[in-house]
Amino acid sequence: MSGAKKKTTIVLFSGDYDKAMAAYIIANGAAAYDHEVTIFHTFWGLNALRKDEPLSVKKGFLEKMFAKMMPRHADKMGLSKMNFAGMGPKMIKHVIKKHNAMTLPQLIEMAKEQEVNLIACTMTMDLLGLQQEELMDGIDYAGVAAYLGEASDGSVNLFI
Amino acid sequence: MSGAKKKTTIVLFSGDYDKAMAAYIIANGAAAYDHEVTIFHTFWGLNALRKDEPLSVKKGFLEKMFAKMMPRHADKMGLSKMNFAGMGPKMIKHVIKKHNAMTLPQLIEMAKEQEVNLIACTMTMDLLGLQQEELMDGIDYAGVAAYLGEASDGSVNLFI
Amino acid sequence: MSGAKKKTTIVLFSGDYDKAMAAYIIANGAAAYDHEVTIFHTFWGLNALRKDEPLSVKKGFLEKMFAKMMPRHADKMGLSKMNFAGMGPKMIKHVIKKHNAMTLPQLIEMAKEQEVNLIACTMTMDLLGLQQEELMDGIDYAGVAAYLGEASDGSVNLFI
Repeated sequence: MSGAKKKTTIVLFSGDYDKAMAAYIIANGAAAYDHEVTIFHTFWGLNALRKDEPLSVKKGFLEKMFAKMMPRHADKMGLSKMNFAGMGPKMIKHVIKKHNAMTLPQLIEMAKEQEVNLIACTMTMDLLGLQQEELMDGIDYAGVAAYLGEASDGSVNLFI
Repeated sequence: MSGAKKKTTIVLFSGDYDKAMAAYIIANGAAAYDHEVTIFHTFWGLNALRKDEPLSVKKGFLEKMFAKMMPRHADKMGLSKMNFAGMGPKMIKHVIKKHNAMTLPQLIEMAKEQEVNLIACTMTMDLLGLQQEELMDGIDYAGVAAYLGEASDGSVNLFI
Repeated sequence: MSGAKKKTTIVLFSGDYDKAMAAYIIANGAAAYDHEVTIFHTFWGLNALRKDEPLSVKKGFLEKMFAKMMPRHADKMGLSKMNFAGMGPKMIKHVIKKHNAMTLPQLIEMAKEQEVNLIACTMTMDLLGLQQEELMDGIDYAGVAAYLGEASDGSVNLFI
């Protein structure tokens, strides 16, 4: 700990818009505090990293089904509570605009600018049939060992 | 760490009765262990701090909708699993009584008595249109920076 | 910290197949890294420890209802997202097999082999009416104090 930067790590497991917002708000805050910050995206949290446009990558049947069922891009994610078939996310986005707060895609952009380390979990990418071409640029690919390497001397470690 | 009190921090994001119970049980346990404990209530977790009675505060349309859709007061929160339109919470409260365990409002009361630091996240209060008059007395108001200040030298940091 | 083993603790609150998978993958990874690992199963997370076969233990009415409504055994748990009345878990299990990944019961078995400390929370067992005969062998029984004892000098503490 002597002089070294403090570390914050977040496992983003959830594919909910609001939970991902919370994760990125904490990450951006910690980066502003000069922490070295890592967000490890696994399972549904990978959807936050998906590109907006549809891509014609080759997939098996199950992988195609997952790809269809899961929201493509951060902006399409639902809420953990009161989703109301998409009404909830619209309301949240309205109040975000009204209060000049940042949307999830903006928070992700800011995290990149602040050099937050965005990692996509390769094992769950395999399970859900997601390929690197489908995820945004400028992110890293790693497994649980890389996460644990960061987390085991992290000051703040969260699972969201 | 030399002689200083250990710290426990919890981000209470969830608005579920059972998850809030878990958060407050851990918080009360840590306080009994002489930890300095902070619960940072954000998003739906703010509902645990809402007063029981309806209040006539001035609100915009979206804020009114959120206020109506969200449970007022800890006692009204649903379960994360098996909510069954309110059946689940009733069952949980029955077994709590039967086993002489503590309800969520009692756990919150105990946390206050043990001087657990209850913080309401001002940014999400804005987003959801919650005002200070609507939340219980004796709590603090702060943003993510305050949370990170506590968490970055916390021994136990959880996101619930 | 001088030379002592690093500790990882996980509170497994969730009863979702995918979340429990994430918990056990992290736990197994940390154990492989030579961490001392504890998973504290509470609330719905206790279902991961339930035995497969139905048991004739004596229960009150509410306890019977909980027992019926909750999944018996790790293999029966649903997904946190896209459960689709059981379709989602089947899809996940298919892709797990296809990618030669490990199912939840296999991950739990591996955790036992790696001497991960599996604890069932006695307080929530009482609440949900679960008895020791209903849970798998080779686990420990303890309360929140035991968890906090481990977590307060843990390197990685997560709530899942």
